[in-house]
Amino acid sequence: MNTSADAARCTPLVLGVLISGSGTNLQAIIDRIAEGQLPAKIAVVISNVASAKGLDRARRAEIPTVVLDHKAFPSRAAFDEKMVETLRAHDVECVVLAGFMRIVTKVLLDAFPYRVINIHPSLLPAFPGVNAQAQAVAYGVRISGCTAHFVDAGTDTGPVIAQRSVDVFERDDEESLRKRILREEHVLLPAVLGWIARGWLEVDTSGGGRPRVRLNPSNP
Amino acid sequence: MNTSADAARCTPLVLGVLISGSGTNLQAIIDRIAEGQLPAKIAVVISNVASAKGLDRARRAEIPTVVLDHKAFPSRAAFDEKMVETLRAHDVECVVLAGFMRIVTKVLLDAFPYRVINIHPSLLPAFPGVNAQAQAVAYGVRISGCTAHFVDAGTDTGPVIAQRSVDVFERDDEESLRKRILREEHVLLPAVLGWIARGWLEVDTSGGGRPRVRLNPSNP
Repeated sequence: MNTSADAARCTPLVLGVLISGSGTNLQAIIDRIAEGQLPAKIAVVISNVASAKGLDRARRAEIPTVVLDHKAFPSRAAFDEKMVETLRAHDVECVVLAGFMRIVTKVLLDAFPYRVINIHPSLLPAFPGVNAQAQAVAYGVRISGCTAHFVDAGTDTGPVIAQRSVDVFERDDEESLRKRILREEHVLLPAVLGWIARGWLEVDTSGGGRPRVRLNPSNP
Repeated sequence: MNTSADAARCTPLVLGVLISGSGTNLQAIIDRIAEGQLPAKIAVVISNVASAKGLDRARRAEIPTVVLDHKAFPSRAAFDEKMVETLRAHDVECVVLAGFMRIVTKVLLDAFPYRVINIHPSLLPAFPGVNAQAQAVAYGVRISGCTAHFVDAGTDTGPVIAQRSVDVFERDDEESLRKRILREEHVLLPAVLGWIARGWLEVDTSGGGRPRVRLNPSNP
């Protein structure tokens, strides 16, 4: 037995979850934690929208919530500085963008290097940006899905952690595809956070090029 | 019983296959036809490379072969005019790009509207152009695949007919991914040609936007 391994297993990963809307991915994380499947703890949920329904989900789970209205800040960087301050005040180790509809800046990324995770409703690099499901339907693809990735300075360009695919049918519209992909997001995001919580995810930046993400379940 | 339906079923689709290399997709078509699974006939195989190994596959199957060295033509259009002449001389109804490493022009596309099919080793619109498998490995995706699509004037931009996905593993390099995707190409391409041969594939250009491809197995 290895005491550091035991320590790694016993200390839950402290998450900060950023939302703008209904927060179904937040709910998936809450549920997996409650079931004991995800060794993590949500320390704070931050929304940039005061009416976001995800805030109710957090309150029901007795998770502290903070509303930061981006319009009240003079710049994206100033908004992100306040977010970093809030996340640090809650001892957050890993930041999860769960339907957070703001572009984040270097201020947040530098404060949490390779610890800002996004879930995107397409098989990146296909269909980055907004309305990914509508883009997929308009293009006429027959396979789409979702991507969990580390956030970098680009729009949905960061290193891929994991992906799940779904079939796209001729009868699909944006909404039916959105629902099908969302079911996969709810599986993928908690799974990826579990890998991080267990110390299984390695990011290799030694290559000089794009960082390589490796899943190593033999880690403590 | 419907006589036109019977006629549609009994007359094999006449294919012209364009290659530049080893022709494993050509072989998959030859094999499915030989097994009676694909109601088609390859009338001619055209290669722009005299040493292409796919030419031997065609000769073994007693399929007429034609070598057209693109370097012997003053322009892409002139090369394509000769291809169209050759395809028409063999009564070709449907043109299959099976590892054909030349950009085709409006000359070919206008001669065979929605009857020029390409198979591409990625889930388009991700990784168009050359070295799609290397692009996928470099990006670090976890899911890739192949796409059968109608060729249009862009590079791998035409309407998607069907796609098949494969997992991408951390240990993968371009070659291992190439092999895994190729197995799916060998399933997908003959299947799609079978849909066309049976009259099951409809292209709806009425929307004004991107043409919609529909699979309608209830057609005769």
